Amino acid sequence: MAPIYSFSAGPAAMPPSVLKQAQSELLEMAGSGMSVMEMSHRSREFKSIIEGAEWSIRSLMGIPEEYAVLFLQGGASLQFAMIPMNLRRQGKSADYVDTGTWGSKAIKEARVSGRVNIAWSGKPDKYRRIPRLSELSFEPDAEYVHICSNETIEGICWSQFPRTDAPLVADMSSDILSRTIDVRRFAVIYAGAQKNLGPSGLAVVIIRRDLAERVTENVPVFLRYSTHIADASLYNTPNTWAVYMVKLTCDWVRSMGGVEPIQKINEEKAARLYRVIDSSDFWHSAVEKESRSTMNVVWHLPNELLEEQFVSEAMKAGMVGLKGHRSVGGIRASLYNAIPLEAVDTLVAFMKEFERRNG
Amino acid sequence: MAPIYSFSAGPAAMPPSVLKQAQSELLEMAGSGMSVMEMSHRSREFKSIIEGAEWSIRSLMGIPEEYAVLFLQGGASLQFAMIPMNLRRQGKSADYVDTGTWGSKAIKEARVSGRVNIAWSGKPDKYRRIPRLSELSFEPDAEYVHICSNETIEGICWSQFPRTDAPLVADMSSDILSRTIDVRRFAVIYAGAQKNLGPSGLAVVIIRRDLAERVTENVPVFLRYSTHIADASLYNTPNTWAVYMVKLTCDWVRSMGGVEPIQKINEEKAARLYRVIDSSDFWHSAVEKESRSTMNVVWHLPNELLEEQFVSEAMKAGMVGLKGHRSVGGIRASLYNAIPLEAVDTLVAFMKEFERRNG
Repeated sequence: MAPIYSFSAGPAAMPPSVLKQAQSELLEMAGSGMSVMEMSHRSREFKSIIEGAEWSIRSLMGIPEEYAVLFLQGGASLQFAMIPMNLRRQGKSADYVDTGTWGSKAIKEARVSGRVNIAWSGKPDKYRRIPRLSELSFEPDAEYVHICSNETIEGICWSQFPRTDAPLVADMSSDILSRTIDVRRFAVIYAGAQKNLGPSGLAVVIIRRDLAERVTENVPVFLRYSTHIADASLYNTPNTWAVYMVKLTCDWVRSMGGVEPIQKINEEKAARLYRVIDSSDFWHSAVEKESRSTMNVVWHLPNELLEEQFVSEAMKAGMVGLKGHRSVGGIRASLYNAIPLEAVDTLVAFMKEFERRNG
Repeated sequence: MAPIYSFSAGPAAMPPSVLKQAQSELLEMAGSGMSVMEMSHRSREFKSIIEGAEWSIRSLMGIPEEYAVLFLQGGASLQFAMIPMNLRRQGKSADYVDTGTWGSKAIKEARVSGRVNIAWSGKPDKYRRIPRLSELSFEPDAEYVHICSNETIEGICWSQFPRTDAPLVADMSSDILSRTIDVRRFAVIYAGAQKNLGPSGLAVVIIRRDLAERVTENVPVFLRYSTHIADASLYNTPNTWAVYMVKLTCDWVRSMGGVEPIQKINEEKAARLYRVIDSSDFWHSAVEKESRSTMNVVWHLPNELLEEQFVSEAMKAGMVGLKGHRSVGGIRASLYNAIPLEAVDTLVAFMKEFERRNG
């Protein structure tokens, strides 16, 4: 049988060597006599895993000491609630950039508990592009500015980040570790793990320690960043298995030479796919070229019937997860770090053949 | 080498057959071509896993249709915050029974957002017993009554549950599926998975559907039970791996004949251990006999030095996780479902020999 390539948007494909190591250690982790899943989160063995995961992320992203790295539960969705609860003080407002499905989910949650200023919205234009920096209108006394660095569903991403007076907060769920960034430009970076970092059930939060002190006493203890910073992510039992998988995945990225070489491969993967999309009118991408995502490539075929046929024939050819999100339709290929160049080449060859037969 | 028995309080030992199945399916789940960790949470394959997990829990506990079963993140600690946010309306109060470390953590969190009435507290008596039902003083207009069915750290558990006018909410993190209960007596049952249900990073919440409608619009969308009920735990990406492990674990309990036979084994395990503790003055249990936990057995030796020696020699004999919680000291053996009778017999034999040498 042909290998199965998953282009799923998340949970997504993981590096085979990482899965193999997890399998080989599943019953017993290195002489401990037990599975990682059976280890007390306060044991010496697990401490070395969680510290290793933190060290690996810090070294890959160049995270300075004045930032804490937290392993929390609830994914990015809980961060949508925690960010305003922790960073926007009573009666104050926060700036949000509405670039797509995830940006607007963050806005919806922030509005539950206080004031939001929409610094720019791509909604009237159906979220087909990222704003120019000059289009952003920030409020002078905003508590922070929130962006989503890559919109998984609409397939658009920020290539340059805005310079803001207020602390910049970024949801990087679908592009963390896919490209180099300067962490110092951000006050908070958060990401659900299930795309580039590991399995679902974990969010990594990178937060400037001083900002965690803003929180007031009417916020539940569990939902304060300060609580988790004080206990180094062990205030309660973390998702120990996911922390372990994040460590293995980050170790794999380091074994590939770090983020920079991975970024080059990612750019090459996306380029090969966009080249086919641009090569004929059979394929159509609504996304503005400057805003195209490297991680999530979305496009359409001439009609829905052909799109269904495409997804179904691709599946028979060993490629799954290509159906676009139900809210936008079409096709989506997610090209996270674990997707090898060969997967893209297989997809590209399939597309050319599909066009020849149906174009 | 002797087998390693873990008496850890959680994350804790898992059934070997469950771990073996997880290992064998880790790279590829039944013809799907991918790991469970790589599956989209909206795929047909994962839907069958999460529905299977729910069905298994429902059938094991006899959960009626008017209750929803949710798979949430954040463990019991997030439930400490969500319960009052969802069930205690503006200006109203809730009754809490303070039986130990976990009961009082729930109280601390409930106090952040509103009024709490302490229906009874074991604190003055150092949490060595569960109250008689006649000692509980509920408020007539309380929004709900909260109890912790088994205090993992103090080693005490409720053998009978109170009948309350207000909905009864129970944290069953450390005794769910260890004994039969009548779900209809409760309005909400919640449990962190990492003791009797699977790995950490997941909480199972069993909630009467009508109660989820109490929530008001000032509660973040993600923190409303109604949100997760409406989307059958797929509002956001759940901890897919943990859901899968919970399914395997529940299937294992069913293969053992269900909760009733497991309860008999659990009672026998605890009885054998308490019998040694009661057999001489060398061992000492502070817990009132009627309140003794079947899941977490805590006791002391004549002095701390001997306790340290006990833990260290037990480890050499292949038994780990026996150190009592740092807040209470002493020894603790957690006897969750996955702990076989032989583990207890090995511990009992070790204790007799230890007493002979040091008594």
